[in-house]
Amino acid sequence: MQTHSDSHTPALLRGIFAPTLTPVHADLSPDVERWVAHSKQLLADGCHGLCPFGTTSEANSFGIGERIEMLEQLVAAGVPAAQLMPGTGTSAIPDTVQLTAHAVKLGCSGVLVLPPFYYKGVSDDGIFKAFAEVIERVGDTRLRVYLYHIPPVAQVGFSLTLIERLIKAYPQTVVGIKDSSGDWNNLQALLTNFPGFGTFTGSERYLSETVRLGGAGSINAVANVIAPLQRRLYDKLGSDEAAELQEAVNQMRPVFKDVAPIPALKTIVAHVRQDPNWLNLRPPFVNLTEAQSQSVLTALAQSGLLERQAA
Amino acid sequence: MQTHSDSHTPALLRGIFAPTLTPVHADLSPDVERWVAHSKQLLADGCHGLCPFGTTSEANSFGIGERIEMLEQLVAAGVPAAQLMPGTGTSAIPDTVQLTAHAVKLGCSGVLVLPPFYYKGVSDDGIFKAFAEVIERVGDTRLRVYLYHIPPVAQVGFSLTLIERLIKAYPQTVVGIKDSSGDWNNLQALLTNFPGFGTFTGSERYLSETVRLGGAGSINAVANVIAPLQRRLYDKLGSDEAAELQEAVNQMRPVFKDVAPIPALKTIVAHVRQDPNWLNLRPPFVNLTEAQSQSVLTALAQSGLLERQAA
Repeated sequence: MQTHSDSHTPALLRGIFAPTLTPVHADLSPDVERWVAHSKQLLADGCHGLCPFGTTSEANSFGIGERIEMLEQLVAAGVPAAQLMPGTGTSAIPDTVQLTAHAVKLGCSGVLVLPPFYYKGVSDDGIFKAFAEVIERVGDTRLRVYLYHIPPVAQVGFSLTLIERLIKAYPQTVVGIKDSSGDWNNLQALLTNFPGFGTFTGSERYLSETVRLGGAGSINAVANVIAPLQRRLYDKLGSDEAAELQEAVNQMRPVFKDVAPIPALKTIVAHVRQDPNWLNLRPPFVNLTEAQSQSVLTALAQSGLLERQAA
Repeated sequence: MQTHSDSHTPALLRGIFAPTLTPVHADLSPDVERWVAHSKQLLADGCHGLCPFGTTSEANSFGIGERIEMLEQLVAAGVPAAQLMPGTGTSAIPDTVQLTAHAVKLGCSGVLVLPPFYYKGVSDDGIFKAFAEVIERVGDTRLRVYLYHIPPVAQVGFSLTLIERLIKAYPQTVVGIKDSSGDWNNLQALLTNFPGFGTFTGSERYLSETVRLGGAGSINAVANVIAPLQRRLYDKLGSDEAAELQEAVNQMRPVFKDVAPIPALKTIVAHVRQDPNWLNLRPPFVNLTEAQSQSVLTALAQSGLLERQAA
């Protein structure tokens, strides 16, 4: 493992990141072998990095102990920690501190941190204090926090005022955000108000505009399936081909627009890999019905996306 | 500690339960000494039992390891496990299993279990499967699960259909519910559809009606302050005094209707005990402003509730 000194700070992360799907065995235990293989495949397919334990990863369905052990196994298996931005935010400061400190010690270049999400209607001041506690308790100059803004799921999010306050208080530490609000206006406000901040869009359809306006890239669920296509787009940004590639990337999400996204993505990966083990899910998620699966796989075939990215 | 055999099952819990406030030190670590003292005081004041790690307890702001250690300290300090129904539900099955199995082993008569609450819009089937996993993994005939229905906070809740399915599948284990929906129609439906089920209202104003319709009692935040008055009401249910006592109990909640309830309750306890350490809160909660505190304490004084219950 690389040695870090206080003067050695991780580079800002940029590009296409996949919130890695997490395969589990039929008994719901982590399927580390498939997880490592999927992670390596995503990097080989062009992802600049990975976010294990994002929302799409069913992160919050895994226990604190499991998450620590699994991340160690991922790095030990040869997935470079420098390309990892694991999710480490929980509803309790001590658990968030434990996961975050562990990720930093493993050499992860960043962490993606949800706000405490159980209590609703909390104040910006309260969320600021929670982050200040986490940052100060971790107490490591290598720590790079990416704020995880996903109000449709977490219900608790980051206002522009709160983000500004966090950046001012911890300019070396709070270095970016994943905006999964799905709201273009919010994303644009982030890009405009915080130039140089590592803003990732959670919506792949905003990838071109995010990078054009100075953002860092995209962390998005469908990168689990169309990483090569997204990487091609990223590499062609600014060229004549970009608009058409962005249009192609945009065709993936509608494939599963009427069903639960995480079960749908596992269905697609099981189909692509011809591996039914990928269908296993942790409750509270359940598999798509047979009709839903057929509908998703038909839409995928009709999109022609997989043939196109293989070409 | 009492020895349990498979044939020795805990009695169904009934009466007034307080979701115990959790004092913390200025450094935010658990203030176990004050917590034990408060717990014992609540039982001395008339609570039939306690729910440590309820929503009011800031439970979800405490780490998995902390919760295990604290519950052991509470029981070791002499708070009878038979009178405890700790909150043990988290967003991840393994953590819920760990907390639940631990509570059962300590001898707790019940556990109050949130549904997995991070992912939203999940199906009844998914929640059922999550509970089935927890119950089967804990695998202890002493386990008594109380479903924790609090959709205003958790956003994920229990439909009547789901409750019926859980009772049918685990009739000896799924024995009750805390209904913190605040919705009388839902509470009435529970009491009507599931006679003999241990239904607790989370709203003290429904205490009389809940018990009249065969429910188990009330688990409510303001029992942290007016346990003696609630116990007096409970003991007088069915008598001529009950209506007037219920009316008095109903006067507590409006005292802090315009501010965040958990900080308000800690403000009130700090005032009653003349102990500013009770003001400490874990982020994301913050203290009331000085003006808010004054307003709450003035309303409390004007209510005359504390004098009345001391009389």
